[in-house]
Amino acid sequence: MKFNDSPVGIFDSGLGGLTVFKEIRKILPFEDLIYFGDTARVPYGNKSKETIIKYSSEILEFLTGRKVKIVVVACNTSSSLALDDLRKKAGVPVFGVIEPGAKKAVEVSSGGNIAVIGTSATIQSRAYSIAIHKEITFLNGDKSRRFNNGFKIIEKACPLFVPLVEEGFLNQEITKSVINHYLSSLIVEKPSCLVLGCTHYPMLKDLISAEIGGNTEIIDSGIETAEVVKNYLKKNGMLKVGAEKGGELFFVSDDIEKFKELGGKFLGRSMENVSLTDGDVIK
Amino acid sequence: MKFNDSPVGIFDSGLGGLTVFKEIRKILPFEDLIYFGDTARVPYGNKSKETIIKYSSEILEFLTGRKVKIVVVACNTSSSLALDDLRKKAGVPVFGVIEPGAKKAVEVSSGGNIAVIGTSATIQSRAYSIAIHKEITFLNGDKSRRFNNGFKIIEKACPLFVPLVEEGFLNQEITKSVINHYLSSLIVEKPSCLVLGCTHYPMLKDLISAEIGGNTEIIDSGIETAEVVKNYLKKNGMLKVGAEKGGELFFVSDDIEKFKELGGKFLGRSMENVSLTDGDVIK
Repeated sequence: MKFNDSPVGIFDSGLGGLTVFKEIRKILPFEDLIYFGDTARVPYGNKSKETIIKYSSEILEFLTGRKVKIVVVACNTSSSLALDDLRKKAGVPVFGVIEPGAKKAVEVSSGGNIAVIGTSATIQSRAYSIAIHKEITFLNGDKSRRFNNGFKIIEKACPLFVPLVEEGFLNQEITKSVINHYLSSLIVEKPSCLVLGCTHYPMLKDLISAEIGGNTEIIDSGIETAEVVKNYLKKNGMLKVGAEKGGELFFVSDDIEKFKELGGKFLGRSMENVSLTDGDVIK
Repeated sequence: MKFNDSPVGIFDSGLGGLTVFKEIRKILPFEDLIYFGDTARVPYGNKSKETIIKYSSEILEFLTGRKVKIVVVACNTSSSLALDDLRKKAGVPVFGVIEPGAKKAVEVSSGGNIAVIGTSATIQSRAYSIAIHKEITFLNGDKSRRFNNGFKIIEKACPLFVPLVEEGFLNQEITKSVINHYLSSLIVEKPSCLVLGCTHYPMLKDLISAEIGGNTEIIDSGIETAEVVKNYLKKNGMLKVGAEKGGELFFVSDDIEKFKELGGKFLGRSMENVSLTDGDVIK
């Protein structure tokens, strides 16, 4: 097999990364995609850095063992805490979801406040703040001056969003109340944009948008990451040649049927080719 | 060390089992207790039977390696799905939380309907229904005839209760709405009692009680399990001799600080002697 024809590897702690998978599939229809969801050990959002690095490294090994040409860490928690480590080990390019989301936030914000929501682990890591400041430093001249000293990055952990999505509470009054609970302290800061810093959150995008109001642009890191991946493959001559629809393989560490059922909601279509790993990944 | 002086081992997927620990401590003040919380892999409630047996067996090995005289599975999910397996392997008596809860439910119910709430895995296993039917079969004569053919066991999964408790939403309006959402279908069946089939749920006991009304007795499996353990140790001459306050050791597979902080809320006092396992358990 030619290198260009190798698959793109994508992983997440569970289902959430399917929102990234969906965006990648949308703009890269010919690529073969391998997705790994660590459903036996989900969620990562309340685990320690050491544990997240350990689990992510095991999955990386699984994917590189399947000769992927790049790896997309479609999990904000793992991107926040394990990315540097994974990049050192991988031997292939590794993309996270934080940098593309941070870049877009800086791009659309005209020096206004930036809000970021995510799991406890992502928010505690301050990965978005760091990436946003790095991005501003990279800008030159007028653009970087848009961000004066008064500008704020407001980060907020929303630990109940993932269980609500996994329970299928996508349009319930309870979900609206929880969104209001978490976001009310953000709204008073009038952010110019809000980064959905967890791959589950796009499933709540409409409710979040209704709560936060029309003046705040909502940024889906998954969409931005898909763009970055496409540009990288194109620029480096790594796009798959041919016009045949790309193949798809899904691997999970637990419970295929539940993954298919909920995953179908994430992708908006039924899922095929889901396999259970045989303990190679979950040591 | 004499066998009687050996510690009692207690484990859970995370924090919830501390409600059982607390009840055991209350009525067995002199016993040494070792608690293991699998915080790296919590929650168990949405995992498969195979995975739950695997994780539970690893913890059993850890506890028996520390020479415990009995093991209490202070986790309804693990009690539902792994207990038979653990009993075969253990070499010491193993107690689950299902049987004591089921026994109490049959005892207080005068042939009326029995409601059970728990995680998805516990409810799907139908472990409480099976245990309740077994208990009724054991009864003889008049007592068992109280349960006529019209009597129902109503089981309901409440997957959002654990994340709400872990987020500290113990008295919020949102929690009341979620309780109402899950319990409204139970209330119409006028159950004589409601079994809290998850060790997190006692933290929501007052709100659940307010929702379900005074005619339904609420059964905390933890309290019943503590009684069973005490009776067993007494009957078999296995109580620790002496009147010195029992020691306590806590082990977790991830994040000591978070465990101490939240665990303190569960126990209603600050926690000492918490250690991180060194990868012996989490393979």
